[in-house]
Amino acid sequence: MALSGNPVLASWRDGAAKVAILDFVARVTDAGHADYVPPADRIAVFDNDGTLWAEQPLPVQAFFVLDRIRALAPQHPEWRDEQPFKAVLDGDTAGIMALGMDGLVALVMATHAGMTTEAFADLVGDWIATARHARFDRPYTDLVYQPMLDVLALLRANDFKSFIISGGGVEFMRSFSEAAYGIPAEQVIGSSIVTNYIVEDGTPMLVRAAELHHYNDKEGKPVAINRHIGRRPIAAFGNSDGDFAMLEWVTSGPGARLGVLVHHDDAAREYAYDRDAGLARLVRGLDEGPARGWTIASIAKDWARVFPF
Amino acid sequence: MALSGNPVLASWRDGAAKVAILDFVARVTDAGHADYVPPADRIAVFDNDGTLWAEQPLPVQAFFVLDRIRALAPQHPEWRDEQPFKAVLDGDTAGIMALGMDGLVALVMATHAGMTTEAFADLVGDWIATARHARFDRPYTDLVYQPMLDVLALLRANDFKSFIISGGGVEFMRSFSEAAYGIPAEQVIGSSIVTNYIVEDGTPMLVRAAELHHYNDKEGKPVAINRHIGRRPIAAFGNSDGDFAMLEWVTSGPGARLGVLVHHDDAAREYAYDRDAGLARLVRGLDEGPARGWTIASIAKDWARVFPF
Ligand SMILES: [Ca+2]
Ligand SMILES: [Ca+2]
Repeated sequence: MALSGNPVLASWRDGAAKVAILDFVARVTDAGHADYVPPADRIAVFDNDGTLWAEQPLPVQAFFVLDRIRALAPQHPEWRDEQPFKAVLDGDTAGIMALGMDGLVALVMATHAGMTTEAFADLVGDWIATARHARFDRPYTDLVYQPMLDVLALLRANDFKSFIISGGGVEFMRSFSEAAYGIPAEQVIGSSIVTNYIVEDGTPMLVRAAELHHYNDKEGKPVAINRHIGRRPIAAFGNSDGDFAMLEWVTSGPGARLGVLVHHDDAAREYAYDRDAGLARLVRGLDEGPARGWTIASIAKDWARVFPF
Repeated sequence: MALSGNPVLASWRDGAAKVAILDFVARVTDAGHADYVPPADRIAVFDNDGTLWAEQPLPVQAFFVLDRIRALAPQHPEWRDEQPFKAVLDGDTAGIMALGMDGLVALVMATHAGMTTEAFADLVGDWIATARHARFDRPYTDLVYQPMLDVLALLRANDFKSFIISGGGVEFMRSFSEAAYGIPAEQVIGSSIVTNYIVEDGTPMLVRAAELHHYNDKEGKPVAINRHIGRRPIAAFGNSDGDFAMLEWVTSGPGARLGVLVHHDDAAREYAYDRDAGLARLVRGLDEGPARGWTIASIAKDWARVFPF
């Protein structure tokens, strides 16, 4: 699948959001403009879930976790009576959620650790090639947002380097980021677990351990941007308060800055959620974003198309 | 200063090392060859101290630390009687070394933490613009190796992406990596300290804390390569056993691989050190490298020039 974007933002409706993006790019790439930014400093950062692709009814990585638990269950008979595994095997979504962050972490570790990085990449690659989104009956990688592919194409055509900065697992995302978005592995920053370098019978390997290394949400996003990229981006795209610090950091820098929040307000074509959306809630961004000069992109009003299909 | 390399390796003498590098690049870029590698996977990694620039009599970052301690001493009268600071202020190099790793870490934290990332970058930038290497009476950034600038130019001309993978501080190196090597900040991986995102009076900042986050040496190198780049490089350059795991990881992958160790055996033009060089010692690499197919590049024999001047 070769998904492609349109650099004139063809899938955006005319309006303030489209103008804000096009105008920003025009200014920072015009050598005669006061806002000109040399190509090397044209760094843009994107949240992934809910910003580049759909995250409802659950983030895609959560479906991977659930499918893996079911696939591994025959080797773990004890899971039938042990939470959080029991809830998964019983199909008890409310029960999983009731177990909170500790339960989710236990599920992630049971499915993401104890194997080499290469074995994990193979697992994810096999899964994402066949798993399908229930509502749209499509591979998850079809549920990328065409307007955001357009933005990525616009930025690429203007010598920007775009990075994903997501709370999702970095090695999970890297298995599809190049194919889905044209973003290479080294431009994907996410949450990570501890990985150990081990040599066994002369063969070196990187083995994933059941221990969190970095949780890439909220204040963790600007910290990881600095650690990994080493300079402050000039444009940031997000969709929840988990992106607030990232947009704050990016748009507080000197010179021209672009901050965009995707607002999910289109239950007919995608989903509608904001203030009460749990981990994906958008409250501070809606309340404070406009006064900070951030653009709120309404899916209902600003996007002529949502998905590539 | 615009240092430039020569993509035909003009500053390398004819010999096995030069042939190994040129031959590797020719094979992986020849679409008709069995060893062909598509451009996206042409990732090369370089140690910094002793591989890209001189690290004797001490690594450059150590001179920065010593100069900073002396500059800060008037604000810290207690340092006159307190180790490891006393040893620095007394010019007692043997005394500093006798304090071991704990002493060095205390010096690093006293000079690298407690400020914003931007303030630190300014400090390093100001220092490196004026500090000079005692023996060569040149700015440290002149002490980059011309043959390695040639290798970087060769790789750039052949669509490789080159990364620095160093035990040095990542934010220290980023202040000169672009100017000295043409390697942008986001392609520099190093040791790092914890950085916290703080908003003060509405102004967000990243503040460097006196706590180690990642020590990028030995097994830490392949771990950081995987975390940051997300794929296994096909070429690696180092100069000490701190690079052994990195070269092992890189050259164990399938397909064509290049591992190169710079051997410091030229006291007349640079320095001569290997098996007894403390943190920079090269023992396993010399003993096992050749059987692993690694190239040992002798400064005395393989380099027609050492420095750009
Ligand atoms: Ca999100
Ligand atoms: Ca070194």
